[in-house]
Amino acid sequence: MQISMYVKNEIRILGWDDGPFKKGSKGTVPVIGTVFRGGSFLDGILRIDVEIDGFDATKKMIKAINKTRHKDLRVIMLDGITFGGFNMVDIKELHKKTGLPVIAITRKKVDMRKFREAMKKLPNFEKRWKVVESAGEFYTIKTGKRGKNIYFQKIGLTKEDAEKIIRLSARRSLLPEPLRVSHLIASGIVKGESIGRA
Amino acid sequence: MQISMYVKNEIRILGWDDGPFKKGSKGTVPVIGTVFRGGSFLDGILRIDVEIDGFDATKKMIKAINKTRHKDLRVIMLDGITFGGFNMVDIKELHKKTGLPVIAITRKKVDMRKFREAMKKLPNFEKRWKVVESAGEFYTIKTGKRGKNIYFQKIGLTKEDAEKIIRLSARRSLLPEPLRVSHLIASGIVKGESIGRA
Repeated sequence: MQISMYVKNEIRILGWDDGPFKKGSKGTVPVIGTVFRGGSFLDGILRIDVEIDGFDATKKMIKAINKTRHKDLRVIMLDGITFGGFNMVDIKELHKKTGLPVIAITRKKVDMRKFREAMKKLPNFEKRWKVVESAGEFYTIKTGKRGKNIYFQKIGLTKEDAEKIIRLSARRSLLPEPLRVSHLIASGIVKGESIGRA
Repeated sequence: MQISMYVKNEIRILGWDDGPFKKGSKGTVPVIGTVFRGGSFLDGILRIDVEIDGFDATKKMIKAINKTRHKDLRVIMLDGITFGGFNMVDIKELHKKTGLPVIAITRKKVDMRKFREAMKKLPNFEKRWKVVESAGEFYTIKTGKRGKNIYFQKIGLTKEDAEKIIRLSARRSLLPEPLRVSHLIASGIVKGESIGRA
């Protein structure tokens, strides 16, 4: 059973997104975590670097979260569950090892057939696919001024609490601020410039 | 004569701060520019890299600003006029080549005697000192909840307009949001973590 959280307006959210990289390139990409108080105030930045199509994202994220000086985090948000290509974040493991609930959000509906086909081209397909399956079902929520659908998976909290937290933090765009801003930063530091979209 | 600006609440401000580096080290440091609408909404990120104690900061900043897709910038803010050690930003030149007013802000009063002594140890002292002198006089303004003094130099706008813009954007800390957040990002991407202060 999951007990409903008391969701404060200034709830501390840590939202992660990765930087871009050239298709086919090797090496690492920066993954940026922004700590927000609710949907408005940026409190701090975390950075890890993960291997393109590697397997180190889950472990590095857990380590960064468990050693951070931000001791008041209440929930983790992810921009999907893949970082640096198909470096998968195992949200069950992330939840278990940090003790924090996790919400993975995607702006577009994931085409699971296409996703699976792309993943099949990589080594260790079975291992990656297991992580996809363990992330659980997708929920739909309308955000933004015009009420467009975005999609989420979650663990460690109720669907209703996840919805509350998404609505609270998605004040100025379709995506919650911690993900919108992590995207701007990760893409800006790699490309030299980033620009928002509504 | 300087004509007073019409300062809107959502005025686009670009605020720059540099990342930390180890004393005595060589190479470059990242310098992050954040584009804010007034004091609240982060619209985009710029990044340049400048040489420690070098001379490329002014030129690189001008280039980044003149080629950015953020076409609605109205004012530039700097965290002081030195980036990456004593890599000086010539605010007169920055103003002239971008057409934008510039406000350089420091949290603490600069001890000009100490500053000059430290700078004297570097090559091209005269060239650096000229930039310091051309930045003009310091003004004082009280910001933050408890009204503490911070200090600024400015070019291309009146003292009154600079004050308006600082007050408008320093809503949540002593420093205007574009500088507070650029500091968090620049230090977070270098050190792996940054944390705010009040």
